[in-house]
Amino acid sequence: MIVIFKNSAQPEKIRRLCSEFEAQGLEIHKIEGRRANWIGLIGDTSGLDPDLIRAHDCVEDVKRISEPYKKVNRKFCPNDTVVCAGGRKIGGGHFAVMAGPCSVESEAQITGIAESVGKSGAAFLRGGAFKPRTSPYAFQGMRAEGLELLCRAREKTGLPVVTEIMNPAHIPLFAGVDMIQVGARNMQNFELLKALGRQKTPVLLKRGLANTLEEFLMSAEYILAGGNENVVLCERGIRTFEPSTRNTLDISAVPMLKSKTHLPVIVDPSHAAGLSWMVEPLAMAAIAAGADGLMIEVHNDPPHAKSDGAQSLTPAQFDELMKKIGAAVQFFGKAME
Amino acid sequence: MIVIFKNSAQPEKIRRLCSEFEAQGLEIHKIEGRRANWIGLIGDTSGLDPDLIRAHDCVEDVKRISEPYKKVNRKFCPNDTVVCAGGRKIGGGHFAVMAGPCSVESEAQITGIAESVGKSGAAFLRGGAFKPRTSPYAFQGMRAEGLELLCRAREKTGLPVVTEIMNPAHIPLFAGVDMIQVGARNMQNFELLKALGRQKTPVLLKRGLANTLEEFLMSAEYILAGGNENVVLCERGIRTFEPSTRNTLDISAVPMLKSKTHLPVIVDPSHAAGLSWMVEPLAMAAIAAGADGLMIEVHNDPPHAKSDGAQSLTPAQFDELMKKIGAAVQFFGKAME
Amino acid sequence: MIVIFKNSAQPEKIRRLCSEFEAQGLEIHKIEGRRANWIGLIGDTSGLDPDLIRAHDCVEDVKRISEPYKKVNRKFCPNDTVVCAGGRKIGGGHFAVMAGPCSVESEAQITGIAESVGKSGAAFLRGGAFKPRTSPYAFQGMRAEGLELLCRAREKTGLPVVTEIMNPAHIPLFAGVDMIQVGARNMQNFELLKALGRQKTPVLLKRGLANTLEEFLMSAEYILAGGNENVVLCERGIRTFEPSTRNTLDISAVPMLKSKTHLPVIVDPSHAAGLSWMVEPLAMAAIAAGADGLMIEVHNDPPHAKSDGAQSLTPAQFDELMKKIGAAVQFFGKAME
Amino acid sequence: MIVIFKNSAQPEKIRRLCSEFEAQGLEIHKIEGRRANWIGLIGDTSGLDPDLIRAHDCVEDVKRISEPYKKVNRKFCPNDTVVCAGGRKIGGGHFAVMAGPCSVESEAQITGIAESVGKSGAAFLRGGAFKPRTSPYAFQGMRAEGLELLCRAREKTGLPVVTEIMNPAHIPLFAGVDMIQVGARNMQNFELLKALGRQKTPVLLKRGLANTLEEFLMSAEYILAGGNENVVLCERGIRTFEPSTRNTLDISAVPMLKSKTHLPVIVDPSHAAGLSWMVEPLAMAAIAAGADGLMIEVHNDPPHAKSDGAQSLTPAQFDELMKKIGAAVQFFGKAME
Repeated sequence: MIVIFKNSAQPEKIRRLCSEFEAQGLEIHKIEGRRANWIGLIGDTSGLDPDLIRAHDCVEDVKRISEPYKKVNRKFCPNDTVVCAGGRKIGGGHFAVMAGPCSVESEAQITGIAESVGKSGAAFLRGGAFKPRTSPYAFQGMRAEGLELLCRAREKTGLPVVTEIMNPAHIPLFAGVDMIQVGARNMQNFELLKALGRQKTPVLLKRGLANTLEEFLMSAEYILAGGNENVVLCERGIRTFEPSTRNTLDISAVPMLKSKTHLPVIVDPSHAAGLSWMVEPLAMAAIAAGADGLMIEVHNDPPHAKSDGAQSLTPAQFDELMKKIGAAVQFFGKAME
Repeated sequence: MIVIFKNSAQPEKIRRLCSEFEAQGLEIHKIEGRRANWIGLIGDTSGLDPDLIRAHDCVEDVKRISEPYKKVNRKFCPNDTVVCAGGRKIGGGHFAVMAGPCSVESEAQITGIAESVGKSGAAFLRGGAFKPRTSPYAFQGMRAEGLELLCRAREKTGLPVVTEIMNPAHIPLFAGVDMIQVGARNMQNFELLKALGRQKTPVLLKRGLANTLEEFLMSAEYILAGGNENVVLCERGIRTFEPSTRNTLDISAVPMLKSKTHLPVIVDPSHAAGLSWMVEPLAMAAIAAGADGLMIEVHNDPPHAKSDGAQSLTPAQFDELMKKIGAAVQFFGKAME
Repeated sequence: MIVIFKNSAQPEKIRRLCSEFEAQGLEIHKIEGRRANWIGLIGDTSGLDPDLIRAHDCVEDVKRISEPYKKVNRKFCPNDTVVCAGGRKIGGGHFAVMAGPCSVESEAQITGIAESVGKSGAAFLRGGAFKPRTSPYAFQGMRAEGLELLCRAREKTGLPVVTEIMNPAHIPLFAGVDMIQVGARNMQNFELLKALGRQKTPVLLKRGLANTLEEFLMSAEYILAGGNENVVLCERGIRTFEPSTRNTLDISAVPMLKSKTHLPVIVDPSHAAGLSWMVEPLAMAAIAAGADGLMIEVHNDPPHAKSDGAQSLTPAQFDELMKKIGAAVQFFGKAME
Repeated sequence: MIVIFKNSAQPEKIRRLCSEFEAQGLEIHKIEGRRANWIGLIGDTSGLDPDLIRAHDCVEDVKRISEPYKKVNRKFCPNDTVVCAGGRKIGGGHFAVMAGPCSVESEAQITGIAESVGKSGAAFLRGGAFKPRTSPYAFQGMRAEGLELLCRAREKTGLPVVTEIMNPAHIPLFAGVDMIQVGARNMQNFELLKALGRQKTPVLLKRGLANTLEEFLMSAEYILAGGNENVVLCERGIRTFEPSTRNTLDISAVPMLKSKTHLPVIVDPSHAAGLSWMVEPLAMAAIAAGADGLMIEVHNDPPHAKSDGAQSLTPAQFDELMKKIGAAVQFFGKAME
């Protein structure tokens, strides 16, 4: 860590601050430039808060040299983590497609879609029981009942189930689920992350709408620090000034995350653009950029879905897409799970 | 609501969709232009989901004409709401300053700061007991014990207390608090918003880092729709590309929110920039733009605070600032609460 | 176009505004809803300025139904435009790779790189003679001399040349160039766009750092409206809050632009991330998303380049990459130019 | 400057790079941490390009310690610059209001508005002759004729004139103008900046839509480096995800710029929001935040203006506003020019 002092800093204050660092076991390298005067701190600086150092009135700025995350850091764990959930693998060359409706709406609907996406080659069934909706007047999901219907669909099809949680108090309800999803709006719901770190079901963590990759990794770090090492990261589009797509898929996030962490990284092309016709090109781009999987919305009757119709594929469109996905995954050197 | 059809849309599909709208009690106005073909829907469209309409393959786009929020809408409630909490008023000409440390750290610390900010003229004591931190390795707050210390500081000083909640399960712990804060990262934690709508303590709702004003108002709508009409909105800076400040204070949000809603709007200049020396100019700008209050971080020893030191004022700096705030509030026609 | 009136609008003012629209030959459809009162305008509204309509005090908002661009609009020209430059084709199934250094530095350098990238299969030589640099103290390019060196490299290798223009007064100097590039910072340099519309050399137009796709298309419209229909669009990353990459490649822009316009769309993976190791995954993603070409920086000695070293490939790395590009272009159904 | 090496860096490569730095006269401080290995460079690093250093394959990252700008840097010139143009002063306590229409439309229009805003207390007449418009089909300004009309309005009213330039070739036409404006879209039109640095008329430089404050200062540095020290900076709103205002006024830019540079800083509340009713609160916020002036659009008949009607005040509204501006400027300790 680098601490840069103000030109006007009193030497006495700098000395006092340096003593504090030394008392914490850090080694100090003083460097005096013509235009700037700074120190380098050597040792374990992960516990230091740059903001608190900036609060000293002799300090102009503070810069981190090493990453603030540990357990998710590829530097300390160079091999790809392979996450197993419900018997399926993600990462380390295993490419998994998760497919299903935005919301679970009825037993017939979810089971029908599960059978269909399973036949097309999906590795997981996705479906929302607890739904985060911008409007209090919109459909809020079937909640606990939806979770039961998902489990019944799994019994019929053998497809493991991934579904979203919104409240730490609901964890017991998710006992039968194969992978618990944390949605973009809850990426920094730290109470939820801590609770998920204390249980063992694998977690699918979606990137927040306006969160940096470092913040994303720090949220994953919460779960690993709690003891749960089965985390899959999902890029699903970030918020930018561009209005023609609902979000902007940050495709660079895929190679960047894979360079920074050993965790698997998947992409959600459905939420990224919010447009069903754009799912295919974005899915292809995700595979080409090195993703370990895809999460795709499929609905038997998109215009009458209870949510997110505009971005859902029909089962027939999904089946067609899966043929292309299979070929592209092979072309880019991974194996369909 | 406007529904625009594709040039290639089959007339039969348009007819079928129009029948669905009519079955929902909506009146339809068909309009055929040279370059676009569209309909206007008249009636209560607040229950329609534009996304689902877009899922019809004959539809090119959908545009809302009226706002999706009702209870927070100034159109339906033109007079300013005055929120009362712990005997203090916010809104309708009453200007309230909330001040205190980022985190409650000890009884001596919080009581000392409370006495000091109270003497300087603050209307509320702020202080975090449950702390949302990016890093799992950072100080996470004193939690329940912090809430108790806040209440003791209130007993000594008479200052009502505002503090942040992160988990709906903690609501009983907040029974003694005068105003419950929802932080930026939880603005779309809908489970929390619903729970806060079902209880009566006033809520201070902070704008999310990357949320539009419409989304902000929809989150407030969740609380009002649940039955709690005592909501204060807080602009605290949004995420942009500019790196020199931690966030970018969206000062236009103040007049825009006040035109759209009857709820009071305050500004947090401490979190907006993350720099203690910028609190004063931003506080002045907020008053000038029409804000109903300010939330300001004050710490007795910023460099040794357990969080957010870089943006905290000392009690002496805050006292100095309060004189300027008092004068500016009067100049711009409001009264200090 | 839709014009929405304020609830408080005086009927007389609405009537007067409607008469103005009728005087412009537009047909008016009046629609009165319970919560909003609005009109639809039918006819050629491309000359109307929504801002001026908003200036009427009876007007609450204005929404466009049809696109403001004409000549670049795929609706009016459904077939892909194939741009030919220096004997090479881009678009309509022809995939072109443009490669070369950020800056032309010497005859030996540019000719050497040209020979090398030509052998690897590049269709065009890129190289900057006039350099837009953030700092006045950075290398500003060899200017006119650089253009001469590019032409000499073309003589030796047969590779057509694409290079950036920054000033309309320089157009005569670019007479020998095969394709003139407009950089991101000049995307809305309308004087330059107009001048390029009046001449015949094909134009490579890069998207501005913070420009919407609609603005991008309007800038292309400037060139086509001037009489030059040979325009290639280039997505090169937009500015977002994410700091780990220099810009954020907007991969969705590729399919979105190709749906809106008949012009070819290429991608610059070098500038998008600013990191040489990320050129490959982003190039693959661009091909997979449907791009018609790539622009890639190659330098014989990146650490000693006069600009943009961090994102340049060496000739050997580029040669390796071109094998993968060739295979991917074929896999996704296009032909290398 | 700090250079951080990869863990995998070969010592030989680090040694070679260090020799290059030493050959440039820089002193090197080597620091080896447990998790990172880096050097500090001491000496004049303003000519070093961090990108080129990053291109060395032993380098992981590079961080600047000191600012890349010199002549605009307040560190080297602590006193406020007062810019004089047409006999009026801006900066150093002098607060100047520039007012007038977006576009010059006729002699009667510009002279009428000039008389009116002059009576209300404006220090400068603004008006566009060359207009940057997103659409090639929109009114492009009266160009040279517009400049003449501005000069005639100055003769009648004595108000100095500020107007926008878009092309370095037009500088001779601007000979009679008192202050030359560079619009947001041309903030990084470096050819134009260089040309303006070589002449003596004061320059009003607007911040680009998506440019950081550092880039803004570097563009000003271009003009000062060329020899023209009379530069006024103007914050006019940046591009964000928020759709309710045209841009987001970055009010923090005012105190931040004033801390970094000695140049005067003004605010354009008309373009920032694009809404005439929001000009007043944003103007007040700008004064409160420490701005040295305002640029405000005034039109005699906003709905029939040739551009930007929605954000223009009428002369009567402006007159009313100027009374409030005068009082606020005095309250915040500056003097109206």
